[in-house]
Amino acid sequence: MSETRSPLPLLFRRHSSGEMKNLASVSSSLLPAFGTVVNENYLQLKKYVIAPYDRRYRIWQTFLVVLVVYSAWASPFELAFRKVSTGPLMIMDLVVDGFFAVDIVLTFFVAYLDKSTYLLVDDRKKIAARYLAKVWFPMDVASTLPFQTIYRIFTGKRDKGDVFGFLNLLRLWRLRRVSELFSRLEKDTRFSYFWTRCCKLICVTLFAVHSAGCFYFWLATHHKKAENTWIGSQVSGFEDRSIWLGYTYSMYWSIVTLATVGYGDLHAVNTGEKIFNMIYMLFNIGLTAYLIGNMTNLIVHSAIRTFAMRDAINEILRYASKNRLPEGLKEQMLAHMQLKFKTAELQQEEVLEDLPKAIRTSIAQHLFRNRVENAYLFKGVSVDLIVQLVNHFPST
Amino acid sequence: MSETRSPLPLLFRRHSSGEMKNLASVSSSLLPAFGTVVNENYLQLKKYVIAPYDRRYRIWQTFLVVLVVYSAWASPFELAFRKVSTGPLMIMDLVVDGFFAVDIVLTFFVAYLDKSTYLLVDDRKKIAARYLAKVWFPMDVASTLPFQTIYRIFTGKRDKGDVFGFLNLLRLWRLRRVSELFSRLEKDTRFSYFWTRCCKLICVTLFAVHSAGCFYFWLATHHKKAENTWIGSQVSGFEDRSIWLGYTYSMYWSIVTLATVGYGDLHAVNTGEKIFNMIYMLFNIGLTAYLIGNMTNLIVHSAIRTFAMRDAINEILRYASKNRLPEGLKEQMLAHMQLKFKTAELQQEEVLEDLPKAIRTSIAQHLFRNRVENAYLFKGVSVDLIVQLVNHFPST
Amino acid sequence: MSETRSPLPLLFRRHSSGEMKNLASVSSSLLPAFGTVVNENYLQLKKYVIAPYDRRYRIWQTFLVVLVVYSAWASPFELAFRKVSTGPLMIMDLVVDGFFAVDIVLTFFVAYLDKSTYLLVDDRKKIAARYLAKVWFPMDVASTLPFQTIYRIFTGKRDKGDVFGFLNLLRLWRLRRVSELFSRLEKDTRFSYFWTRCCKLICVTLFAVHSAGCFYFWLATHHKKAENTWIGSQVSGFEDRSIWLGYTYSMYWSIVTLATVGYGDLHAVNTGEKIFNMIYMLFNIGLTAYLIGNMTNLIVHSAIRTFAMRDAINEILRYASKNRLPEGLKEQMLAHMQLKFKTAELQQEEVLEDLPKAIRTSIAQHLFRNRVENAYLFKGVSVDLIVQLVNHFPST
Amino acid sequence: MSETRSPLPLLFRRHSSGEMKNLASVSSSLLPAFGTVVNENYLQLKKYVIAPYDRRYRIWQTFLVVLVVYSAWASPFELAFRKVSTGPLMIMDLVVDGFFAVDIVLTFFVAYLDKSTYLLVDDRKKIAARYLAKVWFPMDVASTLPFQTIYRIFTGKRDKGDVFGFLNLLRLWRLRRVSELFSRLEKDTRFSYFWTRCCKLICVTLFAVHSAGCFYFWLATHHKKAENTWIGSQVSGFEDRSIWLGYTYSMYWSIVTLATVGYGDLHAVNTGEKIFNMIYMLFNIGLTAYLIGNMTNLIVHSAIRTFAMRDAINEILRYASKNRLPEGLKEQMLAHMQLKFKTAELQQEEVLEDLPKAIRTSIAQHLFRNRVENAYLFKGVSVDLIVQLVNHFPST
Repeated sequence: MSETRSPLPLLFRRHSSGEMKNLASVSSSLLPAFGTVVNENYLQLKKYVIAPYDRRYRIWQTFLVVLVVYSAWASPFELAFRKVSTGPLMIMDLVVDGFFAVDIVLTFFVAYLDKSTYLLVDDRKKIAARYLAKVWFPMDVASTLPFQTIYRIFTGKRDKGDVFGFLNLLRLWRLRRVSELFSRLEKDTRFSYFWTRCCKLICVTLFAVHSAGCFYFWLATHHKKAENTWIGSQVSGFEDRSIWLGYTYSMYWSIVTLATVGYGDLHAVNTGEKIFNMIYMLFNIGLTAYLIGNMTNLIVHSAIRTFAMRDAINEILRYASKNRLPEGLKEQMLAHMQLKFKTAELQQEEVLEDLPKAIRTSIAQHLFRNRVENAYLFKGVSVDLIVQLVNHFPST
Repeated sequence: MSETRSPLPLLFRRHSSGEMKNLASVSSSLLPAFGTVVNENYLQLKKYVIAPYDRRYRIWQTFLVVLVVYSAWASPFELAFRKVSTGPLMIMDLVVDGFFAVDIVLTFFVAYLDKSTYLLVDDRKKIAARYLAKVWFPMDVASTLPFQTIYRIFTGKRDKGDVFGFLNLLRLWRLRRVSELFSRLEKDTRFSYFWTRCCKLICVTLFAVHSAGCFYFWLATHHKKAENTWIGSQVSGFEDRSIWLGYTYSMYWSIVTLATVGYGDLHAVNTGEKIFNMIYMLFNIGLTAYLIGNMTNLIVHSAIRTFAMRDAINEILRYASKNRLPEGLKEQMLAHMQLKFKTAELQQEEVLEDLPKAIRTSIAQHLFRNRVENAYLFKGVSVDLIVQLVNHFPST
Repeated sequence: MSETRSPLPLLFRRHSSGEMKNLASVSSSLLPAFGTVVNENYLQLKKYVIAPYDRRYRIWQTFLVVLVVYSAWASPFELAFRKVSTGPLMIMDLVVDGFFAVDIVLTFFVAYLDKSTYLLVDDRKKIAARYLAKVWFPMDVASTLPFQTIYRIFTGKRDKGDVFGFLNLLRLWRLRRVSELFSRLEKDTRFSYFWTRCCKLICVTLFAVHSAGCFYFWLATHHKKAENTWIGSQVSGFEDRSIWLGYTYSMYWSIVTLATVGYGDLHAVNTGEKIFNMIYMLFNIGLTAYLIGNMTNLIVHSAIRTFAMRDAINEILRYASKNRLPEGLKEQMLAHMQLKFKTAELQQEEVLEDLPKAIRTSIAQHLFRNRVENAYLFKGVSVDLIVQLVNHFPST
Repeated sequence: MSETRSPLPLLFRRHSSGEMKNLASVSSSLLPAFGTVVNENYLQLKKYVIAPYDRRYRIWQTFLVVLVVYSAWASPFELAFRKVSTGPLMIMDLVVDGFFAVDIVLTFFVAYLDKSTYLLVDDRKKIAARYLAKVWFPMDVASTLPFQTIYRIFTGKRDKGDVFGFLNLLRLWRLRRVSELFSRLEKDTRFSYFWTRCCKLICVTLFAVHSAGCFYFWLATHHKKAENTWIGSQVSGFEDRSIWLGYTYSMYWSIVTLATVGYGDLHAVNTGEKIFNMIYMLFNIGLTAYLIGNMTNLIVHSAIRTFAMRDAINEILRYASKNRLPEGLKEQMLAHMQLKFKTAELQQEEVLEDLPKAIRTSIAQHLFRNRVENAYLFKGVSVDLIVQLVNHFPST
């Protein structure tokens, strides 16, 4: 990378001084998301400090997202089905909490990108100060502590209330990692925007359905008269039936309500259920509108090119028939138009015109200089003249 | 503010004459909504006349909007549940009516902005004439008079019919204040358009749900056979049960219908209910379409930039791979493009180009004149030349 | 209208010859929809021939649309409720049919606009030939003949089958008049596009709901076992109950199904009902999507200007704070931008640029010539020079 | 077609060499979809090799699509209703399978278009290699083999399990032909995009509804207790009733669920049904959003021109009234604008500007050369000068 052709990194390097090392040019720090390879030798961070775009750190973060998905499923489930929360799932929870505890410690060793200078900060005190100052640290800790286990160790008995079930919901704080992942993926051109967005919408929908179902079951188990609940009025003694049956009924009710099908075989019976049902339905109106709005957005964007091509073809056909152009000429016009849409040249020109002169010149030099120099016509001509000449070549 | 650089206020000041004081230039009168501070010394209104953008008057108006929200909730509620309308809520209603009565008096002292001259009119006769001429004044008075209390004072007995319940609905006229507030907030760039709009849609939805629920309950209480009503066929003796139960059932039915879930546990039984239900459902189709349309609009607008960036990045990658550009050059192109989108430079240029020459010149003078004057090259050069020179500098 | 400035009418007049009179220039024939007054002396049609944009003929057409609305309501209603079709509605039907018979005769005297030459054709033979050649004439006649009355006159007895009920549905052919009216209103800038479109959507929805309800009731009355129908299983002896009850039940079911609420109190019982219900629901999915799509379209279009203004204001604020521009300059920029959006100048420029040179010159002459001629500077200057000079003035 | 005016075909011909014949220029190979006639003499393929755009081959392909529609209907139907799969439909299936077997053989004789060189490859080995290498060949064979008949021939007995029912679902692989057909039709300007797209959406919806209904019936027939199923709890002994009744019930349930009406007369009873119902409802949310998104896209696109015209007319009216332009001038402006929108000139200019210089020159020569040559002014002028002159004429 010849520095003379690159005004941007220079610009940013000028600010680098004192305690903050000019570790990464802005291009390096921004690019990883766009599919270019970061030259890792380029960065020389302090010992034991990890760059946020280190490949191994990224894998660790992706692994944590998988654990978050588990947490998002397990937290509401354990609230609804108390039996499992003290059974097999409990060990799983402790393991997952362990991983997140490791991540809290790790965060103290990860350099961060300063928002105003676009430089990586690898001073460990600064990293710690930043992490502790924000709301992230206490929330991270609160969402990691296994309250239930601690309580049992100290008091020696199982909890009776639902306090710990609700404390477990703190683990949903971890969902911000999923949200961050999706907002990063949406900007990454290696992944299809359509499918990234669809995947996000599916995740949101499934989480909403799962949470509502679990909470609805919790409402049923906590009503004083079992036969006066949505599930108890259909299944007698539902509390002694299998978890599988309860979960199926909950999810079935939840999806029937979200999809606004509302068969009516399961419906709110007592006042508490009615109130929760109302909130859920109002939320569903918003969610449905959000799903449809996103889908429409994706479809409209994907159809732009088809519409543009159809319109262009139609204009040519109309023009040709109006002016009685010969068949050969019409065919040429159509062939040209199709090729243009196939190679997507139309947008390219606009994008390249927005680039600064310096970069456009570099492109022209790279594309044409060799050929011009080797052309017989320019033998013996000074290098300066050729450079000047090539600068005026259009790059598209 | 140097007048020579400001063609607009001059333009408007020219019209000022005679009875209307040139109190505020157009910029001052229009700007408050856009986050600039109005210089209050600038305005010299007649004694006891208040400027419409006076800070204290704005706070008063905002306070009234809170009372409007109460009125919007209470009016349908009191229609449905007659018991409360003569109980605790009655005093609350009288207090609220008092505040609005004060506002009617106050309106006679608030200057207004003339639509054709863009000048503030502070002549009290004109203000009164304008207020009395429009439909606003009689409606304001009618929506403020506490008919029920007046009736009781004069006749000494409680009303038996529902006349006063329906007269109370006149208070919904106050809702125009909420509508005005939202249309002002939507143009105010200090607030996110997305959340302003969402908030408005939620308010509209909740009001529709609440009103429909209350009216549906009113229908049930006024049917001759209680067991032949939507609620009476489910809850025997519903009229003697608590208000809370009735309100929960009403809202539950209303939301189940709006969300088109329609479990079927509550449904119209007699003809009157069927007819209201039909009207409500047809209205809901429109409301749902309106909600989805608005949501789509917001999502499409918010996605424009992401799409533009993704498309630009894709074009560069395609161009680079087609022309086999070296990695360094490609990185520079990408870094430039990302910076452009981060700083949102693209739109800025277009907006600034639309500004008139005079303003663009002022900007150039402000940005570059000092530096040019101090440059060694221009020492001893006449001021005129420097001004001319700087005028040709591009401001972006 | 000076001909030298108007290239268009000249262009079209050139084609006028022989049997077709050059009665109306293209501007006259096209304009009526856009709110300009047609100079009726301008047109000299043959005796007894009416211009299609004659004011009285337009009023007659609008009156017929009102009758079409009645027909659209009555035709399905009479099919479902046979009792009324031989009662009071029958006379009404005959009167309406009479009006449409008059219109058929009238059509032979209305000039039409030739699609290729844009000239009015007032030759009565041509008008008749055109009307008889198309599918319109036989359909118009078939939808006007009162088959039921004719049958009764000839045979002397009432019909027993539903043949005439279905023949009456031929009157729905008249609906094309409503469709034409709406497509004309949508292009007429005197009416709000938003409300025209909403009105159209409401009409379509109500007609769909009404037709489906009536046909569903017809299915119930024609099933061999009354208790095995959707209404008979709820209301015993429904056939002997009032028309009002039957119509309420039908419409209630129809709207509950269209709005996808589906309480379940009324639902298809026998196979015939199930099949019709399926078709209606599939149609409803399409109708709902159409309603939402239209609403979204209207909302997106109406929000374009708000978005543009907010974006422009935001860009200016960002630019001002980035370059630390003084408060006064920022205010000027904002005031200018707001004025531009208030007066909608932005789009105007583009539109005017699309006008041909001749028209733009005329505008400039009209706007500036007087002032330039009277200016001291140009006293004694030749008219030609002033005309030339003014031609170069920008019209915006 | 004069080669000197056609840079594109030349460009592509340059790559042609060796074993691949330069059979078709890019224009010929791309155009068939756009309504131009392919000159078939132009192509000289090897013996027994068929061009993919051969008219007879296209008819054969279209005929196969009709058979695919049958397969898409029959495969789920035979799974649900075992009786028919061994009865009359079995022969039909064998015939259809036969046709697809013929198509597999035929594919070995159809030339293909090389993606990188845009040339037709007619070497039979290459064709075979390409077909066998892809996943298409094994899937085509698997979806054609009549497993059930083969089993019966070899073992001499009827199958008892549902293995063959599910194997029959392999035939749905053929649906990719329908998908290909639609994606080709969408790019073909001879067909309305709106109706092509609507047709596609209707096909997708009907297939989803049919498949879900059939699978739901299959679930009912395979539950151990018939009265514990969705249909068995309503219709006793449903397994011995007619296929028609079962199919009506299945489709009715399926459409009631898709349209989210959910009357509740039919609903999931056992756990298996509940789970399938959930999956189907979640899928339906996506499908509904997809339908609405597509409809919105089509409506927004079709309304663009109406909006543009209304906006332009409004701007002109506003400008005319602001500047008090005389009526005549206003009428001219309106007439011009309407004509522009009627003839759709606005877009045409943009499209033609995108064409390369060479083509635009050809157009100008074709349109103006004759007239210029015959003009008295240019008598005796050299041909070169006239060509040069005409090249500068604007083609719009």
